[in-house]
Amino acid sequence: MSKYVIGVDFGTESGRAVLVDVSNGREVATTVYPYKNGVIDEKLPIPGKEVHLEPDWALQDPEDYIRTFQHTIPAVVREAGIDPADVIGIGIDFTACTMLPVKADGTPLCVLREYRENPHAWVKLWKQHAAQPEADKINATARQMGQKWLDRYGGKISSEWFFSKTLQILDEAPEIYAAADRLIEAADWVVWQLTGLETRNSCTAGYKAIWSKRQGFPDKTYFAALDSRLENVIDAKMSRAISPIGERAGDLTEQAAQWTGLKAGTAVAIANVDAHVSVPAATVTGPGRMVAIMGTSICHMVLGTEEKLVPGICGYVEDGIIPGMFGFEAGQSGVGDIFAWFVEHAVPPEYHTAAEKQKVDLHKLLEQEAAKLQPGESGLLALDWWNGNRSVLVDVDLTGLLIGATLATKVPEIYRGLIEATAFGTRTIVEAFRSNGVAVHEMVTCGGLPEKNKLLMQIYADVTGLELKITASKQTPALGSAMFGAVAAGRAAGGYDTIFEAAQHIAHLKDEVFRPIPKNQSLYDQIYGEYIRLHDYFGRGGNNVMKTLKRIKAEVKQNA
Amino acid sequence: MSKYVIGVDFGTESGRAVLVDVSNGREVATTVYPYKNGVIDEKLPIPGKEVHLEPDWALQDPEDYIRTFQHTIPAVVREAGIDPADVIGIGIDFTACTMLPVKADGTPLCVLREYRENPHAWVKLWKQHAAQPEADKINATARQMGQKWLDRYGGKISSEWFFSKTLQILDEAPEIYAAADRLIEAADWVVWQLTGLETRNSCTAGYKAIWSKRQGFPDKTYFAALDSRLENVIDAKMSRAISPIGERAGDLTEQAAQWTGLKAGTAVAIANVDAHVSVPAATVTGPGRMVAIMGTSICHMVLGTEEKLVPGICGYVEDGIIPGMFGFEAGQSGVGDIFAWFVEHAVPPEYHTAAEKQKVDLHKLLEQEAAKLQPGESGLLALDWWNGNRSVLVDVDLTGLLIGATLATKVPEIYRGLIEATAFGTRTIVEAFRSNGVAVHEMVTCGGLPEKNKLLMQIYADVTGLELKITASKQTPALGSAMFGAVAAGRAAGGYDTIFEAAQHIAHLKDEVFRPIPKNQSLYDQIYGEYIRLHDYFGRGGNNVMKTLKRIKAEVKQNA
Repeated sequence: MSKYVIGVDFGTESGRAVLVDVSNGREVATTVYPYKNGVIDEKLPIPGKEVHLEPDWALQDPEDYIRTFQHTIPAVVREAGIDPADVIGIGIDFTACTMLPVKADGTPLCVLREYRENPHAWVKLWKQHAAQPEADKINATARQMGQKWLDRYGGKISSEWFFSKTLQILDEAPEIYAAADRLIEAADWVVWQLTGLETRNSCTAGYKAIWSKRQGFPDKTYFAALDSRLENVIDAKMSRAISPIGERAGDLTEQAAQWTGLKAGTAVAIANVDAHVSVPAATVTGPGRMVAIMGTSICHMVLGTEEKLVPGICGYVEDGIIPGMFGFEAGQSGVGDIFAWFVEHAVPPEYHTAAEKQKVDLHKLLEQEAAKLQPGESGLLALDWWNGNRSVLVDVDLTGLLIGATLATKVPEIYRGLIEATAFGTRTIVEAFRSNGVAVHEMVTCGGLPEKNKLLMQIYADVTGLELKITASKQTPALGSAMFGAVAAGRAAGGYDTIFEAAQHIAHLKDEVFRPIPKNQSLYDQIYGEYIRLHDYFGRGGNNVMKTLKRIKAEVKQNA
Repeated sequence: MSKYVIGVDFGTESGRAVLVDVSNGREVATTVYPYKNGVIDEKLPIPGKEVHLEPDWALQDPEDYIRTFQHTIPAVVREAGIDPADVIGIGIDFTACTMLPVKADGTPLCVLREYRENPHAWVKLWKQHAAQPEADKINATARQMGQKWLDRYGGKISSEWFFSKTLQILDEAPEIYAAADRLIEAADWVVWQLTGLETRNSCTAGYKAIWSKRQGFPDKTYFAALDSRLENVIDAKMSRAISPIGERAGDLTEQAAQWTGLKAGTAVAIANVDAHVSVPAATVTGPGRMVAIMGTSICHMVLGTEEKLVPGICGYVEDGIIPGMFGFEAGQSGVGDIFAWFVEHAVPPEYHTAAEKQKVDLHKLLEQEAAKLQPGESGLLALDWWNGNRSVLVDVDLTGLLIGATLATKVPEIYRGLIEATAFGTRTIVEAFRSNGVAVHEMVTCGGLPEKNKLLMQIYADVTGLELKITASKQTPALGSAMFGAVAAGRAAGGYDTIFEAAQHIAHLKDEVFRPIPKNQSLYDQIYGEYIRLHDYFGRGGNNVMKTLKRIKAEVKQNA
C-alpha cells in the first residue's frame, strides 16, 4: 500500500500543501490557502483600530499560518482520497528571514491584547526593508571589529536578515524586545506549532542569522558593541542548539492532529527555506549542478564539499541545503521584475493590440518577436541593475543601463537585450563560483520563468555555456518539503533514511534540455566581454555615476 | 507706398514662399507647394517605367522647383492683394548639399530622354547617404596628402556633401558624369532659372564643396589623386567664380516673370542655405549670439570676426552666413528625432489614453508630466547619440545610452532625461566654441521645438547658462531669403544696402526670454560633469563598446 508525505510551502501571499506519493514523487493533490490578512503593509488588521505602518514595512499574521495547516492539509487528503494514516511525514518551508517575537510557550506577542497594536509584535516578513540603518550599523561594527564571519556573507549583512530586524525591534520598540522570551524564524515557529517543540533549523540560522556549524554565532563582545542590551541575545532570546536540516523535529501533537486531520505522532521535519529546499527537489544533492530559482529575481544555489570564500556571494552554510555539504547561495535582485517593468512602462499600444489579437500576453508576444533576432543583432547591451546588484557586486545603489540605442531600435530588441543582460548577470555569478573553486557544470532551473520563456532559457544556455534543465514539478519548494517529510519519517515508516535516497525517488526533471548553440555562444562570448567591462567600470568604482545620480536625486527630494 | 520682397524656401517635401513688407518685416502672405514628386526614394517617377532605387537614395525632380515658383509666387501676390510691381526683390534658400548634373544651358540631364531613366541624372537630395565609400576615400586621400582644408571641417567630409556625391556619379555612372557640362547646387540652379545666369554662392561652396575665400578649392593634384578623371572637375564642371551671399545674382528674366507674375528685371539674390539664411532672420548679424535651429536635429551657427579652428565643428566659412564674417557651424544629429523615437517606441497605452482625454499630443502630455520634476530628481542620465554625434565628436557610430534606471523609473522621467541629454549635447558645442576663442553669450532659437516645448527651452537655458530667445517668425528661412532679396534690390529700389540694415528692420524676436534659474543651473552643472565624463569615456576611445556592438551587429546581419 502506498505511503504519502505532505509538504507545506509558506509563501508571501499564500500557503500551499502538496501531497506526494513517497515511492515515486507523484504529486497527488495540491491546495492553496490565500492568507486572510495577506501582506500587511498599510495598517494592522485590527477591527476598529487604525494603526498605520511606515513605508518599507511588510508584516504577516501568524494565525494565517495555522489557518494554512487547517485549510490545506485536510483538503489534499480529501482530494487524494487516501487514509490520513498513510501520511507518514510532513515537511515545511518558509520565506526567510521572516521572524516574530513570541512568549516562552510559543505564543506570538501580536495575539496578546497588550501588544497587539504594536507593529513590532507582528511577524516581520522577509521583504521588510525598514531596518537598513540597523544593517548599516551591524556591518560597520563588524568591519571595525574585524569580524571574520563577514566574509561568509560576501562582506555584507542585509537589512532583511535576522539581526537587522532584531535590532530594529530593540531600537524602536524596546518594550517588545523585553517582552519577547524568544525571537524566532516563522519557519521554526510553525514546526513548533506542529510538534510542541522549539527547534531551530541550520538553513535560516546559517543564511540569515550569522550562525555557522564550526564557529556558531558571533560572540557576545560583538553583540555588546552593537548595543549593550543585545549582549546576551543568543542565550536569552534564541538558542545555540541548531538542528541540521534533514532531521526529524518531532511528532505531530494531538492539537496539530486535530487541525490537520492527520494522525498524532506523524513525523515532522526540521524547517527549511523555500529556495534552499528546492535544491533536492530539483534532483541536486551534490556538487557541480547549480539550481536557479528564476522568477522576479533569481536565487542561485550550488553545493560543495569544501569551504570556499567566494567574494560577492550572499552566503554559504554548512548543512544549509544538504546535510554534510556546504550550500553556496548567490542571487540577482532583478530579473522577471525588470521584464515586468519594461512591459508596464515601455511598450507602446501596437504591441498591446497585437497581443490581444493573438490572445497571448505581452511577454509571450515580445518573446516571439525577440526570438527572431540573432545574438548581437540588436546592437544593444544592458546592465541588469534596475534593482541593484545582489551578487557579485553586492550594491543596492547600482542602477540599470542601456547602451546601443539608435533611431531604428525596436521594442523586441530592448526586451531581448534585457533578457541577455540578466543572463550575463547569471554568468558573472557562475564565473565567480568557478574561479573560487566551486564547480558549476550544469544548471537546473525552477520557478516561473523557465516554464514561460523558452527564448530566455536558450539565451541563458548560450550565454553561460551550460546545459539548462527544468524541474518536472511546478511546486518545487512544497515538493522539497515533502521530501524532507519522508526523511523525517525514515525508511522504517515507509520513507527514506536520507535526502539523497528521497531525491532519487521523488525528484524529477523534464526531458527538455536547453543546450548551448556554439555559434550563439561565440557571439555572446564577445558581448559578455563588453558586459564585464561595463560591469567593472560602473560597479567597481571606475565611474560612480550611478551613485552620484542617486545622491543628487536624494538631495533634490529632500530639499523639495 | 509699401514695397515688398519675396523669400522662397525650398525644403525637403515642399517649397514655401513668403511675401514680406520691406519696411517692417511683416509677413503679409505665405503659400506652400508640396512637391508633386516629393522625395524620390523608391523608384523614378517615370510613367510605365520601373526604375527602382537602392537603399539610402533620395532624389528630387528639378521640375518641382519650377512648379514651386509657378504656384507659390502668384499665390502670395494674389493673397496679399498687392501690385506685383511693388515686389522689388526675391531671395531663395535651399537644403544643401542638394545637387544635380546639367547641360551648359542649365537643362537638367534628367529631363532629357536619353538620361531620364538613370537615377544619377536626377537631383541628389541632401539626405542621400549612399556615397559613404566615396566620402571615406575623400577623407583618407586628404589625410594621406596632409590636406590642410580638412581642419576647416572638423577633420571629416560628410557623405552628404558635394564631392562625395560627385564621386559617386563618376564611380557608378561615368556616362552621366561625362554628359554633365555642369555640376551645380540646386540652390544655384533655381537662381539660374530665375535670372538666366549661372552663379555659385559662397555658402554652399564653403560648407559643402571645400571652397574657401582665401584658399579656393583643393588643388588639382588632390582631385587627381582621388580619381584621375576628376583632376579638372572645378574648371570643367564647376566654376572658381564664387559669389558672396548678400550680392545680387541678376534680374528676373521674361520667362521667370511669366512663371511668377512678377515684373521682369526684379532683383534676385545670390542663393542661400535654409539653415544659414535663418541667422540674420533671427536678428543675428554679429559675433556672440548663437543661432540654434531646433527640430529633428539642431544646427548651431555663430559668427566671428576671426578665423578659429574649433575641433569637432562641422565647418566654418568666411562670407558663409554674413558677408565679411566667419560663419561657424556645428550640429546635433538627433534631437527632436530622439523624442519622436521615444514617443513612438517606448510610451505605454495609459499615456496615449491620457493624451487623447486631454486632447493634447503625447509630447505635450509628457512635457507637462516631466515639468513636474526637478533637475536630478529622476536619477537618470542619457547620452544623446541615438543618431550618432555630429559635433564635437563627429562620429556616426556612436549610439544612445541611458543610465540610472530602476524599477520605479517612470515614462516622463525618461522623456525629461532625453531632453536634458540633448541640452548637455548643446552645451558641449557651446563650450567647444568658447574654449577655442569663438564667443557665445546668448542663444536665439528657431525651428519647431522652441514653439512647442517650453520645458525644453527652460532646460536648455538652465543647462547652458545662456538666455534663450525665439524668433518672431515661424518661417525664418523664407524670411531670411526675403531679407537677402531686399538687399539684392538695394536702397535705391526701396530695399536695403546691407544685410545689417535689412535685419534691423525685418528681423524680430518674441518678447519671451528663457533665463537660467540659478538653483537648476547648479544641479545641472553637477550632472553635466557626469555627462562629460561618460561623453569622453564612450566618445573618445576610453571604451569603444558602441562601435564594437555596431560591428558585431553588422557581422551578424551579413552572415544571416
